[in-house]
Amino acid sequence: MEKANATVCPIGLSQEEVGDKWTMLILRELFLGVLRYDSIQLQTGATTQMLSTRLKKMEEDSLVERRLYSEKPKRYEYHLTAKGRELFPVFLAYRAWAEKWCKPAHSEPAVSFIHKLCGEDTGCGVVCQNCGKALREEDLIGTMSPSYQHERNLRSTPNLH
Amino acid sequence: MEKANATVCPIGLSQEEVGDKWTMLILRELFLGVLRYDSIQLQTGATTQMLSTRLKKMEEDSLVERRLYSEKPKRYEYHLTAKGRELFPVFLAYRAWAEKWCKPAHSEPAVSFIHKLCGEDTGCGVVCQNCGKALREEDLIGTMSPSYQHERNLRSTPNLH
Repeated sequence: MEKANATVCPIGLSQEEVGDKWTMLILRELFLGVLRYDSIQLQTGATTQMLSTRLKKMEEDSLVERRLYSEKPKRYEYHLTAKGRELFPVFLAYRAWAEKWCKPAHSEPAVSFIHKLCGEDTGCGVVCQNCGKALREEDLIGTMSPSYQHERNLRSTPNLH
Repeated sequence: MEKANATVCPIGLSQEEVGDKWTMLILRELFLGVLRYDSIQLQTGATTQMLSTRLKKMEEDSLVERRLYSEKPKRYEYHLTAKGRELFPVFLAYRAWAEKWCKPAHSEPAVSFIHKLCGEDTGCGVVCQNCGKALREEDLIGTMSPSYQHERNLRSTPNLH
């Protein structure tokens, strides 16, 4: 079989790096500022094996870099590189799609954004519903909905039963 | 383990449906107008098993619908639904990212688009580099680069050696 990466197609090339649900959930956590192994594991529900193999490959693909935050024991945080961070528009596009097609009508968005450039709610598109400008990560102030915050709070405590 | 779809997060929800490389490659083919099983298989390199399980799930998820095009033998084309078609901005965002980060500098884009609204090349962003409007599938006229067309032509002939 021909290797899928023997291609000039950017879709094929992108999917060799991020065409995997667990990789995408890890990236979501990093965008949300959750950078440590244990917390990423709780929020994604990935097994240790899944998480370790993904993080290793993401480092090889230059999507993340490890930074030591504890010497004894040695522990690392995972930070998005510039390459990883520029996946933000992909996440905005998935957000727009799934808020519309994968949730009941009139659900509140899991995360709302205020657009610093115009001061208004951006809506769920890839351009601001108020001022029409393309949304950039650095121009957004995000707030989680109460239901999403609650869901994440429950996960942040390891399940004891 | 908590089910990943017990969530209000649109990223988590989207990845339950399209968080898979083969699903994304099938969707790419459908956007390119390649609708028949055998041709999709040649262009993606998926095995029969991979392709059949994905197409079945995509139909269950209402991303595609089957349409009979031959009675004897019974054969179907796979058409994007409105839900499937609205994934187009996701593909634009992946294209923008991978043309920049997954290919050598100064590579030609695999697919170029003319923007019907302004008559100019859109560039590789999610908004038109000329007129700044958000790119919509219905406003674009795509052309494959010679190298991408060549690669696809080679795949469209079953490998005989």
